[in-house]
Amino acid sequence: MIEEKENIQFELTDELIEQVELYVETQNDKELKRLLNDYHHADVAEILDELDLEDSVYVIKLLDSETTSDILMELDEDIREKVLKHLSAKEIAEEIEELDTDDAADMIAELPEERQAEVISKIEDNEHREEITELLAYDEDTAGSLMAKELVKVYETWTVAGCLRRIRGQAKDVTRVHSIYVVNKEEKLIGRLSLKDLIVAKSEQKISDIAKDNVDFVNVIDDVEDVAKVMAKYDLEAIPVVDDEQTLLGRITIDDIVDVLKEEADKDYQLAAGITQDVEADDSILELTRARLPWLFLGLVGGVGAFLIMEGFEEAFKGKAFVLFFFTPLIAAMAGNVGVQSSAIIVQGLANDDVKGSINSRLIKEMLLAALNGTILALFLFLFVWATKGDFTTALAISTSLIAVIIVAGLIGTFVPLFLDKRGIDPAIATGPFITTSNDIFGILIYFWIARLILGI
Amino acid sequence: MIEEKENIQFELTDELIEQVELYVETQNDKELKRLLNDYHHADVAEILDELDLEDSVYVIKLLDSETTSDILMELDEDIREKVLKHLSAKEIAEEIEELDTDDAADMIAELPEERQAEVISKIEDNEHREEITELLAYDEDTAGSLMAKELVKVYETWTVAGCLRRIRGQAKDVTRVHSIYVVNKEEKLIGRLSLKDLIVAKSEQKISDIAKDNVDFVNVIDDVEDVAKVMAKYDLEAIPVVDDEQTLLGRITIDDIVDVLKEEADKDYQLAAGITQDVEADDSILELTRARLPWLFLGLVGGVGAFLIMEGFEEAFKGKAFVLFFFTPLIAAMAGNVGVQSSAIIVQGLANDDVKGSINSRLIKEMLLAALNGTILALFLFLFVWATKGDFTTALAISTSLIAVIIVAGLIGTFVPLFLDKRGIDPAIATGPFITTSNDIFGILIYFWIARLILGI
Repeated sequence: MIEEKENIQFELTDELIEQVELYVETQNDKELKRLLNDYHHADVAEILDELDLEDSVYVIKLLDSETTSDILMELDEDIREKVLKHLSAKEIAEEIEELDTDDAADMIAELPEERQAEVISKIEDNEHREEITELLAYDEDTAGSLMAKELVKVYETWTVAGCLRRIRGQAKDVTRVHSIYVVNKEEKLIGRLSLKDLIVAKSEQKISDIAKDNVDFVNVIDDVEDVAKVMAKYDLEAIPVVDDEQTLLGRITIDDIVDVLKEEADKDYQLAAGITQDVEADDSILELTRARLPWLFLGLVGGVGAFLIMEGFEEAFKGKAFVLFFFTPLIAAMAGNVGVQSSAIIVQGLANDDVKGSINSRLIKEMLLAALNGTILALFLFLFVWATKGDFTTALAISTSLIAVIIVAGLIGTFVPLFLDKRGIDPAIATGPFITTSNDIFGILIYFWIARLILGI
Repeated sequence: MIEEKENIQFELTDELIEQVELYVETQNDKELKRLLNDYHHADVAEILDELDLEDSVYVIKLLDSETTSDILMELDEDIREKVLKHLSAKEIAEEIEELDTDDAADMIAELPEERQAEVISKIEDNEHREEITELLAYDEDTAGSLMAKELVKVYETWTVAGCLRRIRGQAKDVTRVHSIYVVNKEEKLIGRLSLKDLIVAKSEQKISDIAKDNVDFVNVIDDVEDVAKVMAKYDLEAIPVVDDEQTLLGRITIDDIVDVLKEEADKDYQLAAGITQDVEADDSILELTRARLPWLFLGLVGGVGAFLIMEGFEEAFKGKAFVLFFFTPLIAAMAGNVGVQSSAIIVQGLANDDVKGSINSRLIKEMLLAALNGTILALFLFLFVWATKGDFTTALAISTSLIAVIIVAGLIGTFVPLFLDKRGIDPAIATGPFITTSNDIFGILIYFWIARLILGI
């Protein structure tokens, strides 16, 4: 039955792509179908991502909509948009018919507004059309935007035997049966069952006797990130979605949550690196510029600030303390690094809900930590400056300032994300260039100010 | 049946913790049990994370091992370690008996080596003990280290009716039945079934007739990250694990993969922020120092390098071009920011497998991108310097150097992670302080070098 596979990982080779291109060029539809049918739809999507647009459209139009609907969902977003432009509203509606309601709604939502209504009107299955329209009405980032209408629902009054008979029908539409949801006659969620419970039970038992009443659920307007946290924390593979009256509306499955978690992690990572929009390495230069330039501009403004500060201290340090200017990159780098470290720990802690206690206790801890790190680093710097410059006072001034700079940088890096979080702003923006730039300026200012005090200039 | 809940999110209040502390103090076991039984084990773990160690141990010893084994698995790792120190080998073995084999092996692996054998010998269930011992033998980061032995297995020769009868027994030990795995008489994996398939099938059909033979699987020595990629890509909720002979050994479920993805994202985020070990905001100051000091030290060395470069150019720029020194923090900041941006995009692209094409084409694209960003930023800088200093040549020298610095920074940020990846080294280490520091030095060097050329000094 099963063939030995060397490795589960599908490998996208140049030969494979050339083979597909050749079949498309020569319009060898039979061989093309045979070749692509061997691959999982996610793998076919990877192949199409590499083809020219017209070749991809050719393949999509050639294969059955049962397969192509899944392939389309797996395509790179930009490429899907382009492919859909080349399909008629009728053709898109045929793809939509094959998709689960959550994927169907996602695909429609990506279309330009004027096409959405047209495509929806071409969906033949009335129930499917109504369900998709319902899903499209929920706000992005709510549980409603993530849920699917497909689920297996039984009434508490049914018997196990009757239930098994009836869900045979329902289950055909549902790709995976995670849980069977038990509702009362008002369609309110009152419990859950697994297929296993049903199989293990006696056929004459009533559903209400074997249902588990400790069913977790989310409200349709709950935030997607909260849903992800709940599902990850309680190890759930699906969760039912209800409205304020506890009416069962749909369910969210773990594979969608995996995507949410991944997007969230990618976004935080990019923010920490100073990238403002969701971009990929393969996006166009203009898109990448739009995502990168704003933070760079902030860095430029910070650099000009640093210039003004240094110029302000020019007269004071000209002459024997001139060497202090040569340590400003070091001071700025240390202030930036310490700030990014402390803000990253806070941002991650906030995301994982494990930052407890007051802001004050956090700041005291960070101060002690920064003082410890700062003293160790300052000692090395002191020895270096003293050894190379032979001037005890200068070495003392530079290294003492470094300790102060590190402490202030740590405090800013800790305080800003905590403050933003209290204000309901995503603390992740307070990492990377934001903290680096503000810490550069504060760091250099503190450095010159303390050095001047110590040198008595 | 079900009570109305305001919000699914469990809220850990001070009142709740005080209530638990009071019951522990007054040894009011009855009320304590009643209170804690209302909560999910993951929530009880959150409560215990906040208690004093002896109070936590008291609660663990009070509740049934059926509940406490799950609570222990959800505890913060550091706290679990401390609690386990206060339990006897016999008590730990009792907890282990209640856990699935994968969790059981994880808990034992965390114990000090000398206790491991003792705890294992105290496990009464022979099969459970042998399975755990087998799992402990697999290397960390392999599929084997993540899999559980609990699964539902049927032979291809069985009938649907016989199968249903037999799996009633097996399924009792398995928390969730994702897939039923079909094996031949040599125990080799040859297909899969869902419970749904079984219910929908006729009772006299043979398993080999209804099994799907396109079953995905991983090898027991495959890397955990590869397993995560495969499961996320193909939207799998469980995957069987086999050895080189295709013998079915165990299965990995999606909840473990969610944890792997989260850990991976956290690690990359911390590396980008210059934190070398997995630390949390609540770790001790010493642990946090150990994680943060190495990268800070690198920054210090980089800063000393910048100092040496500036000192080397001191003679050349003393006098009218003195102002150039005041722009070094700006140059260093821009070089650092650009480097972090480009390396972050590459690191993320490599993690998501969407960096295609040759290194050369990447570098050319990054060069164009950096040239575009650089020119825009340089224009602003030129106008600022010209307006404030009134010297065209100086303004030109500084802004032209900025473009060169940004291009080189982008190239380094692109090349280093690609190079590391080719060498099989985790490219994530090439973000954050590593790129910032190297770009600071290269940036400042290039800046002075080009400025000197333009100013003709």
